[in-house]
Amino acid sequence: MVIVIKPHASKQRIEELIYDIENNGIAVERVVGSDYTILGLVGDTSKIDIDRMRVNEIVHKVMRIQEPFKRANRLFHPKSSSIKVGDREFGGGKIGVIAGPCSVESEEQIVTIAKKVKEAGASFLRGGAFKPRTSPYSFQGLGYEGLEMLKIAKQETGLPIVSEILSENMVERFARDVDVIQVGARNMQNFMLLKELGKTRKPILLKRGLSATIEEWLMSAEYIMSEGNNNIILCERGIRTFEKYTRNTLDISAVPAIKRMSHLPIIVDPSHATGMGWMVMPMARAAVASGADGIMIEVHNDPEHALSDGNQSITPIEFNELMNSLRIISGAVGRSI
Amino acid sequence: MVIVIKPHASKQRIEELIYDIENNGIAVERVVGSDYTILGLVGDTSKIDIDRMRVNEIVHKVMRIQEPFKRANRLFHPKSSSIKVGDREFGGGKIGVIAGPCSVESEEQIVTIAKKVKEAGASFLRGGAFKPRTSPYSFQGLGYEGLEMLKIAKQETGLPIVSEILSENMVERFARDVDVIQVGARNMQNFMLLKELGKTRKPILLKRGLSATIEEWLMSAEYIMSEGNNNIILCERGIRTFEKYTRNTLDISAVPAIKRMSHLPIIVDPSHATGMGWMVMPMARAAVASGADGIMIEVHNDPEHALSDGNQSITPIEFNELMNSLRIISGAVGRSI
Amino acid sequence: MVIVIKPHASKQRIEELIYDIENNGIAVERVVGSDYTILGLVGDTSKIDIDRMRVNEIVHKVMRIQEPFKRANRLFHPKSSSIKVGDREFGGGKIGVIAGPCSVESEEQIVTIAKKVKEAGASFLRGGAFKPRTSPYSFQGLGYEGLEMLKIAKQETGLPIVSEILSENMVERFARDVDVIQVGARNMQNFMLLKELGKTRKPILLKRGLSATIEEWLMSAEYIMSEGNNNIILCERGIRTFEKYTRNTLDISAVPAIKRMSHLPIIVDPSHATGMGWMVMPMARAAVASGADGIMIEVHNDPEHALSDGNQSITPIEFNELMNSLRIISGAVGRSI
Amino acid sequence: MVIVIKPHASKQRIEELIYDIENNGIAVERVVGSDYTILGLVGDTSKIDIDRMRVNEIVHKVMRIQEPFKRANRLFHPKSSSIKVGDREFGGGKIGVIAGPCSVESEEQIVTIAKKVKEAGASFLRGGAFKPRTSPYSFQGLGYEGLEMLKIAKQETGLPIVSEILSENMVERFARDVDVIQVGARNMQNFMLLKELGKTRKPILLKRGLSATIEEWLMSAEYIMSEGNNNIILCERGIRTFEKYTRNTLDISAVPAIKRMSHLPIIVDPSHATGMGWMVMPMARAAVASGADGIMIEVHNDPEHALSDGNQSITPIEFNELMNSLRIISGAVGRSI
Repeated sequence: MVIVIKPHASKQRIEELIYDIENNGIAVERVVGSDYTILGLVGDTSKIDIDRMRVNEIVHKVMRIQEPFKRANRLFHPKSSSIKVGDREFGGGKIGVIAGPCSVESEEQIVTIAKKVKEAGASFLRGGAFKPRTSPYSFQGLGYEGLEMLKIAKQETGLPIVSEILSENMVERFARDVDVIQVGARNMQNFMLLKELGKTRKPILLKRGLSATIEEWLMSAEYIMSEGNNNIILCERGIRTFEKYTRNTLDISAVPAIKRMSHLPIIVDPSHATGMGWMVMPMARAAVASGADGIMIEVHNDPEHALSDGNQSITPIEFNELMNSLRIISGAVGRSI
Repeated sequence: MVIVIKPHASKQRIEELIYDIENNGIAVERVVGSDYTILGLVGDTSKIDIDRMRVNEIVHKVMRIQEPFKRANRLFHPKSSSIKVGDREFGGGKIGVIAGPCSVESEEQIVTIAKKVKEAGASFLRGGAFKPRTSPYSFQGLGYEGLEMLKIAKQETGLPIVSEILSENMVERFARDVDVIQVGARNMQNFMLLKELGKTRKPILLKRGLSATIEEWLMSAEYIMSEGNNNIILCERGIRTFEKYTRNTLDISAVPAIKRMSHLPIIVDPSHATGMGWMVMPMARAAVASGADGIMIEVHNDPEHALSDGNQSITPIEFNELMNSLRIISGAVGRSI
Repeated sequence: MVIVIKPHASKQRIEELIYDIENNGIAVERVVGSDYTILGLVGDTSKIDIDRMRVNEIVHKVMRIQEPFKRANRLFHPKSSSIKVGDREFGGGKIGVIAGPCSVESEEQIVTIAKKVKEAGASFLRGGAFKPRTSPYSFQGLGYEGLEMLKIAKQETGLPIVSEILSENMVERFARDVDVIQVGARNMQNFMLLKELGKTRKPILLKRGLSATIEEWLMSAEYIMSEGNNNIILCERGIRTFEKYTRNTLDISAVPAIKRMSHLPIIVDPSHATGMGWMVMPMARAAVASGADGIMIEVHNDPEHALSDGNQSITPIEFNELMNSLRIISGAVGRSI
Repeated sequence: MVIVIKPHASKQRIEELIYDIENNGIAVERVVGSDYTILGLVGDTSKIDIDRMRVNEIVHKVMRIQEPFKRANRLFHPKSSSIKVGDREFGGGKIGVIAGPCSVESEEQIVTIAKKVKEAGASFLRGGAFKPRTSPYSFQGLGYEGLEMLKIAKQETGLPIVSEILSENMVERFARDVDVIQVGARNMQNFMLLKELGKTRKPILLKRGLSATIEEWLMSAEYIMSEGNNNIILCERGIRTFEKYTRNTLDISAVPAIKRMSHLPIIVDPSHATGMGWMVMPMARAAVASGADGIMIEVHNDPEHALSDGNQSITPIEFNELMNSLRIISGAVGRSI
């Protein structure tokens, strides 16, 4: 940590501050400039509260040197992590493809779509049983009944299932029934839920919050990891910006950024990001070209009659076409699909 | 709802769409222009899924006419609501002032501060027992022990207490021990929590999410109200923007906007919004001048040694000075404090 | 245009409004709902000021049906435009690659880099002679002397040159000396400059403003086109968001959006968007995969000693490696490079 | 400046970097930590290019200690500046009030409004002669003819006039005819214009760009000041955020921020920020309560028939009512109006 002292700060106040810091077992080195004095803190500064430093009236600026996330930090784990889900994985040479409808609507619907996406090459099935909806008057999902339908679709196709959790009270059931537990954007900082998920050893798909910085997102991964569960797959799904044409702005640059900052795998969800089916294909291609470890695509056999978010789904035929182009693109970046 | 049909759409497809809509008991009127055809839907369109309309390939645009929130809508409740908390209220002629430390740290600390803020004119005591922190390694609050200390401070001063809840599993205890239950920005769309709070009749202080639009914020109020609890106080606390100098950008214009759209009272928290103690006073004054029904201010007797967010607290002396200026300003906008 | 009238508006006021509108030669059709009345305007509504409608106190909402841009609108020009620059083009089957240093620093520098990027397959040379810098104390470019050096590099390599203009007073000289005139993000709404450029017939590279919506960007293209110059190449270069890790957020979804809304070609500049050299390659690949008609890449032989923006440049060796992967990716989306 | 060196950087590379820096006449002090090494640079670091430092591959982070603006910096001019305009001023004890229509439409219109706003207590008259409009098809203002009408209104009322400039070619004429030259948000980084204005000694009203950080805004002031003109009045007018309800988000916290960082006066324009007349009064009150040195308000005698932005204007009667409340509020913050 580096602390910059304001010009004209009294010597006594500076000495008091240094004394305070050294009391925490940290060495302080001083660099005296013409206007400002700089204090370099050497040692384990994790106990130093950066906000408490800032409030000191002789302090001009404080700069953290180390990132606040540890277990998620590539600095301490230079090798990329690969998260295993049965005999599949995220973060290895093969790009993971999760596909399926926004919501589970009926056994027939989910089984039909599961078969179609498997045929086109998907490796995981997605389907929402509990839907977090902005309006209390919108369809909220089929609940546990939906989970049961997903399990049938898994039995029929062998595809591991990915579904979103909404509460720490659902963790036990999800840990039993689902292969990858998804934490939605709105719950990225639901810390009670994160801690509970940290106590399981299930793979967690952690979506980026709508206005979460990359650092905050990694701090949420850190919450889960600090409880002992390192099986985290990050998922970029668009951030909120001033642009109104797309629902959100898909931040593809988060892919190389995460790759540099962390060892965790990262996938991209172009369906929720853009909110428009016709934009899914180009953005999925961009995601794979940028180095993403996987994609998550909403596929619906009848988008016009989907119970939620039909607007952003593509058809199985389009999905098949997309997969064909992704095979070429993944080759260009040293991966396969 | 107004649906604009694309140029060159086939007559048959238009007829099919109209047939579909009329099947929901809604009348459709047509306006045929040179390029576009406009469909005006008359009747209860709340059953029409706007996303399903958009995905229809003959549809160019869809415009909702009515706001999606009902119980929170001023259109249906022209009179401003006043939320009673014991013998005090938010939304009446008197501006509600909530003050206290970010976190409860000890009985002595909270009782001392409670007495000071009461003396200066505060009408409510705030204090965090459960702290949602970005880092799992930061101080997480004293938990239920903190709630007990708040109760002691209430006994000593008579000030009703406001404290933040983190989970639906805490609702029973908070409903018993706390006077106003605060839902933090990160939980604004924790719908499981909102629904549970809707089943109580406690006043809920609903903070705006960091990147929530005003409409989404009102929809979260609607979640609570749809379960039967109308005792909601909205709290603007800054939104996330590109500006880095302040922690968030306090959106004061949300005050007149909420006043126009909804009958619910709105207060402002300048402490969390700006993150800097020296900015609290001017922004609190701006909030009251803009017509806010109350303010929430972090006050700490020793900001440099606060266990959390000391940086944004003001001292009891500064709080007293602030209250003096607010007395004049509230008079200029037809209120008292 | 659709105008929604507030509930309880007096009949007389509605009649007056309709009379006003019809006076402009526009037919008005009425749809009367239970709460709201909807007016559908049929005819050329371009003379109707949407803001003037909104200010009318009986008006609840106004919705424009047609996009405000005309010449740039794909609706009226379904075929994609290809912009010719000598024997090359943007918007055809071949992806245009502009490469070169941020600033022209010396004849030797620009000629050396020009040769290297040509060798690797670049089709255009970029180089800044006039640099818009945030600080008046930063290097402002070599000015017209820099332009002369660019001309020498063109003579040596045959690469057409792209350079940024800062003022309407420079139009004449740029039109003579430069092959593609670049309008920077900060000048996207410098309407005096746009109008002047509209009077030439030179290809204009119009960068998106830092906080410009896609619609505003197309309106700036419209400014140039309304003066008669249709030779416009749009360039996405990142938008300003809350994320601090990257300098800007590259909005790749602007590529498919522009393709749908407009017939104009669009290219992507990943160097300025991200501000970090190591992010240029993945983002350039993403851009081509998303369907961009070209890319603009900063290449510097010695990034550590560049006079401006060295941080975001890649070396000629990296550029060569990038081009190799782009050859495969462009094939996957039906293009060549 | 503080430079943090990555862990495992070779000693030789560190020595080379230090040698490079010391060659610029700057002393370097080292703090060696367990993982990172910190270099503290002592001396005039304004010649050190922070971007060039960042591109060095052994560098982890670079932190500037001093703000990049000098002449605008309060550190070097602790006393607040007051900008004189004839016998009036911005930045003194009296709050400056600029009022008038968005556009000058006719001599009668501007003279009528000028008289009304003067009567209500305005100290300056605003009126647009050259209007920067998003669409080339919108009314672009009366041009120099409009300036002449403003001069007549000044003659009739004695109110100094404020009007917006669009190009460096207009500087001579504006310097002669106008009392305060306004630089609009879109031209905040039109550096050619800023430099030209720096050569005059006229008061410049510098609006904040739609997505300009406070620091960038002060850097634009620095451009003007670096040419010798210190007569700058800053004007906050809303920033672009994700919120769609208001046109822009008025960033009132910019007022105390500017007051702390700079000695220049700051005023607020609530009309353009919100885009809705009914929001102007509460936001103007908030601005004055927050400590602004002035406000700029659009007043139109007939908002429904205004040629531009009628939507955001208030009537002379409302303006009068606003002024009455501002008299009380300004007293609460130690000012008069």
